[in-house]
Order: sequence, then C-alpha cells, then structure tokens
Amino acid sequence: MQETKSADEIFKEFKEHSITEFFRKNSQMLGYAGKVRSLTTIIHEYLTNSLDATEEANILPDIEVRVKEVSESRYSIYVRDNGPGIPSKHVGKALASVLTGTKFHRYMQQRGQQGIGAGGCTIFALITTGNGIRVRSSTGKEAYECDLSIDIKGNKPLVNNLEKIEPNFRGLEISGEFGETKYEKSDHGVYEYVRRTALSNPHASIKLVEPEGGEAIFPRSVEKMPAKPRQIKPHPLGLSTSDLLDFARASESRKVTSFLEDTFSRVSHERAKEAAELAKDVDFEKSPKELTWQDAEKIVNAFKQMKWIAPELDALSTIGEQQIEVAIKNILDPRFVSVVERKPRVFKGGIPFVVEVGIAYGGKSGKQSGETVSGSILRFANKVPLLFDTGSCAITEAVNGIDWKRYSIARFEEEPVSVLVNVSSVYIPYSGVGKQAIAQEDEIVEEIKLAVQDAGRKLERYLSGERHKSLQESGYKTIARYVSQLSADLEEITGRKKEETEKELKSLIEKKYKNLFKEEDQSTN
Amino acid sequence: MQETKSADEIFKEFKEHSITEFFRKNSQMLGYAGKVRSLTTIIHEYLTNSLDATEEANILPDIEVRVKEVSESRYSIYVRDNGPGIPSKHVGKALASVLTGTKFHRYMQQRGQQGIGAGGCTIFALITTGNGIRVRSSTGKEAYECDLSIDIKGNKPLVNNLEKIEPNFRGLEISGEFGETKYEKSDHGVYEYVRRTALSNPHASIKLVEPEGGEAIFPRSVEKMPAKPRQIKPHPLGLSTSDLLDFARASESRKVTSFLEDTFSRVSHERAKEAAELAKDVDFEKSPKELTWQDAEKIVNAFKQMKWIAPELDALSTIGEQQIEVAIKNILDPRFVSVVERKPRVFKGGIPFVVEVGIAYGGKSGKQSGETVSGSILRFANKVPLLFDTGSCAITEAVNGIDWKRYSIARFEEEPVSVLVNVSSVYIPYSGVGKQAIAQEDEIVEEIKLAVQDAGRKLERYLSGERHKSLQESGYKTIARYVSQLSADLEEITGRKKEETEKELKSLIEKKYKNLFKEEDQSTN
Repeated sequence: MQETKSADEIFKEFKEHSITEFFRKNSQMLGYAGKVRSLTTIIHEYLTNSLDATEEANILPDIEVRVKEVSESRYSIYVRDNGPGIPSKHVGKALASVLTGTKFHRYMQQRGQQGIGAGGCTIFALITTGNGIRVRSSTGKEAYECDLSIDIKGNKPLVNNLEKIEPNFRGLEISGEFGETKYEKSDHGVYEYVRRTALSNPHASIKLVEPEGGEAIFPRSVEKMPAKPRQIKPHPLGLSTSDLLDFARASESRKVTSFLEDTFSRVSHERAKEAAELAKDVDFEKSPKELTWQDAEKIVNAFKQMKWIAPELDALSTIGEQQIEVAIKNILDPRFVSVVERKPRVFKGGIPFVVEVGIAYGGKSGKQSGETVSGSILRFANKVPLLFDTGSCAITEAVNGIDWKRYSIARFEEEPVSVLVNVSSVYIPYSGVGKQAIAQEDEIVEEIKLAVQDAGRKLERYLSGERHKSLQESGYKTIARYVSQLSADLEEITGRKKEETEKELKSLIEKKYKNLFKEEDQSTN
Repeated sequence: MQETKSADEIFKEFKEHSITEFFRKNSQMLGYAGKVRSLTTIIHEYLTNSLDATEEANILPDIEVRVKEVSESRYSIYVRDNGPGIPSKHVGKALASVLTGTKFHRYMQQRGQQGIGAGGCTIFALITTGNGIRVRSSTGKEAYECDLSIDIKGNKPLVNNLEKIEPNFRGLEISGEFGETKYEKSDHGVYEYVRRTALSNPHASIKLVEPEGGEAIFPRSVEKMPAKPRQIKPHPLGLSTSDLLDFARASESRKVTSFLEDTFSRVSHERAKEAAELAKDVDFEKSPKELTWQDAEKIVNAFKQMKWIAPELDALSTIGEQQIEVAIKNILDPRFVSVVERKPRVFKGGIPFVVEVGIAYGGKSGKQSGETVSGSILRFANKVPLLFDTGSCAITEAVNGIDWKRYSIARFEEEPVSVLVNVSSVYIPYSGVGKQAIAQEDEIVEEIKLAVQDAGRKLERYLSGERHKSLQESGYKTIARYVSQLSADLEEITGRKKEETEKELKSLIEKKYKNLFKEEDQSTN
C-alpha cells in the first residue's frame, strides 16, 4: 500500500498559467489538429480579419493569399488586404496576443468575435518554427513594418524591428512560416475554404496563389458593399441578471433610469418608468453601480412582463437571396434551386439572428465520389464557411432532422442535393474556441429547420412536377403510338382519309395533355 | 455610400479581456449549453476533481452527490468527498479562478487536466444566481469553511467569511445553487453520468440523492485502489522543438547535458553524449537557457535518429479487463461479452496512451427505444464518461469506421450491441475546453480501431458459432424426424425390431453431431 499523500504535498505544485500557455498546449482547440486543417485554420483567421476590417472601413475587399511550400510540412503564408490597416501602437495586441481587440465586447455582427484567432496563428507559428510573423501596414497616415512574436508565459506581444516605410499603399500584409501544415485540395483544404468564402462574400475579390504556382482568381461579382451590420444596443429581453449587473457596473450614468435608457435598445424614459413601477422596492434614482443582484433580477423580470418592439433586426447583414441563387448556379449548375431568406428572429430572448437557406438539386449538387452521390450541407456563420466539427453543429442537426421524404427526397444520403445554410447574428454561440460549429440552441435549430422546410416545399413541387411530367410524357407517347394504326383502321371501315383522322386525333391528345398540365399547375400554386 | 472609417476610429474601441470574462460570455464552450447538460457538467467537474484528489492521496473514494430543486430551472448541488481536502491558502485559486492549479503542467494521467473545470462552475453559479459557492474542507491539520466568488474582470478569486471549524472530518464539501439547469433522467442527465462514472471507477462508492428524494447507491465493487498513475518525465521522442526550448528556459540545470538527463526519461549521461555527437555545432556545455531555436531543433532531430526504450507505460492507469467485464455483466446482462486491453502505445512520437474495449451483445446491450434497438457507444477518457459532442470524437470515428459485417453485425445501427471504449493517457487531446470529445488524432483512432477489431473477432466467433449451432440443431431435428419412420420401415423389410434400430440410429446421429461441434470448436481456437 502506498502512503497517503497530504493536501500540502499535493498543493506544493500549485501554479498559475496564462491563456496563451493554455492554447500553446491545447492548440487543437483552436483548430490546429492535423496538418491540412491547421493550414486552413491560418487562412481562415487572416481572411475573416481582412473581410471584417474592409467591411468596417467600408472598402470593397481586394485580398491576395499566397501559400508556398518551404520544406516538408512547412509552408509560408502571405495574406494582403486593402483594408484600413492597423495603427502601430495596436498591432502587437491585435495580432500577437489573445483576448485583446475590438471584437469581443461589441454587440455587432462580425466574422471574428472572440479576439483569439490572429493571436492563435502567431502562437502556432512560434510553436512550430520558433519564429513569429512579419507585418507591413499602412493606415493612410502611418506606414510601418515589423516582426511580431509573443511572450507565451505572460500573453504579452513582442514587437521587434519596427520601421517606418513609405505610406504608398493602404492595408495590411501578413507573412509568416508555419510548420506541421500541409496543402491539399480536399474538402477541408485551403482551396475549398477560399472558394466557399468567395461564394458567401460576392463583394470580395480574392486571389489564391497555390504552392504549385497555380493562380485561382475568385472575382468580385457585386460592385456594392453588402448591407453594413451596425453595432446595436442589447435588447431588454435578451438580458440575464448577470448581464444587466455587468452593464450597470461599467456604466457612467448617474441614475438607474438613465442607465437603462442609455444602455439598452427600445428603452425610452417612459418605458424605464414603467419598469420602475413593476420592479417595486428598487430605487431607480440611485447609481447603477449600487444595483444588487436582487435589484437587477427584479428589473429583468419587469422587462419580461412588458411588451417590447422587436430588436433592431436591420443591424444584421445577410448574403442575400439573389446572391445565393447566382452563386449556387455558378458553382453547382443545378437543375433546380430554391432560396429562402427568413425574417430575423431572436434567441435567448433578445439576441437577433437571421437564417438563409439555398437548396440545389441535380447538376453538380451533392457530394460526388466516384459513381455515388450523397446529399451535402454547406454551413456558414456570419458568411464564414464552417468546414470542421460537422457533427456538433446546429445546422447539421437541423438538416438531418428534416423528414426529407416529405420533400420528394427518398434518402438525403443518396441524392444529388446540396443545402446551403448561413446563420448571421451579432453573437454566434460557437460550440468551441475553434469556431467551427454553432451550438445547438433550440431556437436556432428550429429556425433553420423552418427555413429548410420552406425551401424544401419549393423543391418538392419541382420534383413532383418533374415526376408527373415524365409520367405524362410516357402516357402521351403510349397513346400516340396507337394513333397511326387506329387512323388506318378507320380509313378501311369508314373511308375517311387516314392523314386527316391522324392529325385531328393528335391535336386532340395534345390539347388534353396541355389542359392536364395547366390543372396541375393551378392545383400546386 | 457610407463614409470610409479610418483605422484610428476602429481601434479606439480596442480592449483587453480576461479569460474568465471570455468564458462568462461563451459558457457553452465549457459545457454550459442547455439546462440538462449544464447540470451534468457541474456534477462532472466536481466528481472528477474528487476522484483525482482521492486517487492522488491514495484514499478509497466515498462520494456523496445531492441535487435538489430550488425553484424552476434552479437547483442546489452538494458534493462531498473523503479526499485530502484543500489548504485554505489555495482554495480560492483552486475553485474560483481558471488556469490555476496542480494539473495543467504535470505529465501525469489525471481526469482533469486543464485547470478550468471547477472555476467554470463558480462562473456559472455567478452568472445564473449572482452567488458563488460555499466550501467546507479539512486537510486533517486544518479545517475551515468559506464562501467563494470570482472577480470576473480580473480572473481573481474572492474568499469571504473564512472561519476555522473543528477538523473532525477529512475531505471537501462543495455546495451551491445554479440557475438555468434541469434534472432529467435521460442519456445526458446526471443519473446516467454518475452511473457511467461508477462503471469505470469500481473502486469508488458513490451515493446520488435525486431531487425527488430517491437515493441511488453505486457501491464499491473492488476494495483496492487502481494502479496509481505516476507523474513521468517526457520521452525524448515526444518532443517538439518548442517543447524542448520551453523546458530549457524553465530548467535550473547548469549545462545542456545535465538538463537533458534531468528533464527527460531514458536520457542517461551516455545517451546525452550520443545526442551531442549527432547535434553538431551545439555547445552542450553551455547553460540550457542559452539554447537557440536552431540548437533545440538539432537536438530534437538527433533524438529522432537514436534508438530509444519505449516511454514508461506503466505510468498509466486503466479500468482493467476484469473490471470492465464485471461491470458490463452487472449493468447490461449481455448474452456475450468480450474485453480487450491493448498494450500501451504512443502518439505524436512520445505521448503514451492505452486503449481498453469491451463489446457486449444481447441482453440490455445497445440503445433500446420502444420496440427498436440500435448499437451504442460508451465513451470514456481517463475513466471519465463522455456524454456530449459524440460526433467529433476519435472514439465515434473509430467505431463507425469498423466494417461491422466482418464481425457478424449486419447493421451496427440495428443490433443489440454496446461498445465501451476507454482511452487513458498522460495527455488526452480534447477537441474542446468542455472535454467531451477526443480530437481525431490518427494514431489514437487507429489504435481504437485495432482494439475494437480484436474484441470484434471474439464476438464474430460467438455469433457465427451461435448461428452454426442453430443451423446444426435444426439439421439434427430434421434428421431425427425420419428416424422413427425409417426404423418402422426397416422392421417390415428385415424383421429387426423398430426400437433397436431407432435407438442405434439416434445414438449414431448424436455422435455425428457431437463430433461436428467438437471440430468446430477446434477450428475456431
């Protein structure tokens, strides 16, 4: 029997760790698992940052991505955009530390939302090559280049060799080498990632230079910026007690009343007074910093009893029905496509989100492998393609939960059908730090299902129409075959010319079938 | 057209955030997604901590869990163990902050490994009720009780109302209330979690008091502690350049030579010299703190060229073949069970892990729902049940990748079969912070497949034996049916008594079939 160990002995090894150390050890949680996926993750982080930055600065994005093989399992990456650039005093924290940035705390639809991605890339460069990344940037006013690295133990950025350069360009250029990576033209590779990004961001022009020297150019297909997402105030219905207290503590308003008016959307002076009447015992004249948990709970409950105008849903930016249809037609060349953009909804009481769905059938739809084809799901969150962690995503759950037989799809796994789903929100509840799957929140799953069913009904009409038409056609052909013989027989009996009878019968049959088609059309509309 | 925004305008909102703030906002990443899952996550965190602590202190665990409904969606939780307790000076950091603790940096098989779980529970209590948790603990020397909370913005523990009490017990008691939770007796609920924990920890005695007052007692079925995992030194083959440098910077050894000997397993003075000869240009006499990335890379490459004794695999602790068999028999009452414990292997060059598999067939095996039954997978990592994120787990991938027809299972989805898999390692590469799925590392997936196939072969022999036996039996019966008639006919022709012939024929047939069975038995062994 081993000796019993005391608490003091066990706890003498007690230590504190930084978040960068945590991710250094668990880089798979950031998406660095497997060589192909790791390379895709790097491109994913830089590309989403460029798209966010150009969108915020209202610039039509022009992005170049270059991937070059340096040695076995080691690639150099170069990403250049024409965005606003990063001021030099912020560049370290923006690209070489985690949980710092402009994105985490804003209530606004953005592709990135955690303030982890770019710092994660620098960590990955460091742990696989010992070197950080190199940056050139010009904000229009100021232009510089520098090397970036991280003090992992302290989550502190290290900016080295910073030098002013000519500000004869505008944007950001990032370059670096990354080990434990591999370029592969697969479903999970960089090419597919860029292709899908282009699909969901038709306002972007993206050029990809591949390791073998090939250039893939995804040209801009719309010359207009998409509707710009706005930073909005949280809706009173989406608040937990803890959220409300958190806002109260950060507030500079003098009184609870003005705090509520200033901080939340749809709260007018009158509505704040109404809340005060419902939340008895809470002193609305005191400083918001003095609110207790009980006070906050009462206010949240008061809000729940009141009727509110819906959240500001126009703050969301979608891909757009037309854009989805054009993109699907270009890429999948399907026999049929149906696109649905639902009205915005909210989850958790007040977080706005909106679902778009496109279903394509036939052509290059579905996943083709050799002779067989199977239904495929193209997932997007805030227009960013999700290639990994398929199994744990709300989109997968919703699409797999559809009774496809109702939509004339006998087995989803065996039909040439592609289902594109994009979920946009000011806050996407990702299931993991790697942002590859949307957590299975009931309201989101339900809304995706409804959207897919909407699009599915159109598909059903098309497919059953097709089937009916092909039945009709075979009936028409069968009857037509007898016309000639019948006309000849009638000539023998009655003496009436075969050609005449044949012509009349044919027109009769055609009329009959035409009517049938018309009736069908009416009954399904 | 909206105005272009400058970098300065965009970056004026630049902020820094704490890891606790991050998890407060993204609590679903810690497993707090959905009310039922959230409750299970809390129990999971406290129970694994208790099992780790008792194991480290070498105490047979005696754990009590109480769940009580306080109001709608709000439950109080109480978990008590007889472990070593926590010294009061460490209790705040241990239970009310994240990335602090004894587990993160140790190279040792433990259930917890991140230093996030318990702090996550306190965050969740805070954001759903405004209150932290309450603790009573006695280390044998010192006993106290206190309230614990967190300063979320700073990731700092807040210890309040600390009072000394009588040290008339030993262990840790945690209690607290948690909102947004729900007790449900489902596949993902607390009861199932505790049941599976008992299954994989037969040395533990666990009592669960349910909200309706029912008591479920899972008694200890072995009176012996399991083989104790040991903290080991990293193997020279499992090192990346970055790891080696990291160890070098923390080392207090005077020279590179002694640093290598002191830090890594299997490195003797002779082997360090051998490495020095291979890693030319690297000065092994200098301080390890002076090692450059290039130096470290050369040493890692030198290590890779040398032959090494395998890692210290006895440092791992498994459930055990016998224990798995007994547990499966108790719980599933199957018609057949086969258990395989593979030899330890390594992944990523040097991280040791071991896979155990049990396959049960018939009885209560598989997942029963109404009239239908389907194959089920019971996943464990370091003996901890994994109930969520099934789709993204290496175990699921491996089991679904098996060609089950080879093992006489026509469709895994439609048979009464349960596959239990436990992966033990000094480092489980979880795919997310919620620790519910093992990342799909090739070497781990492959090893699980081999283990399942091993166990599957035994199942195949049993099932085809069963099938053969039932074929044989029906053959025997068919032939036996003719014996009586044939004997009577022979009596008519030859005069030999029917009874005599019948008896002889029967014994002949029986002998024939007995031999057949024997041959079968031999050929399958």
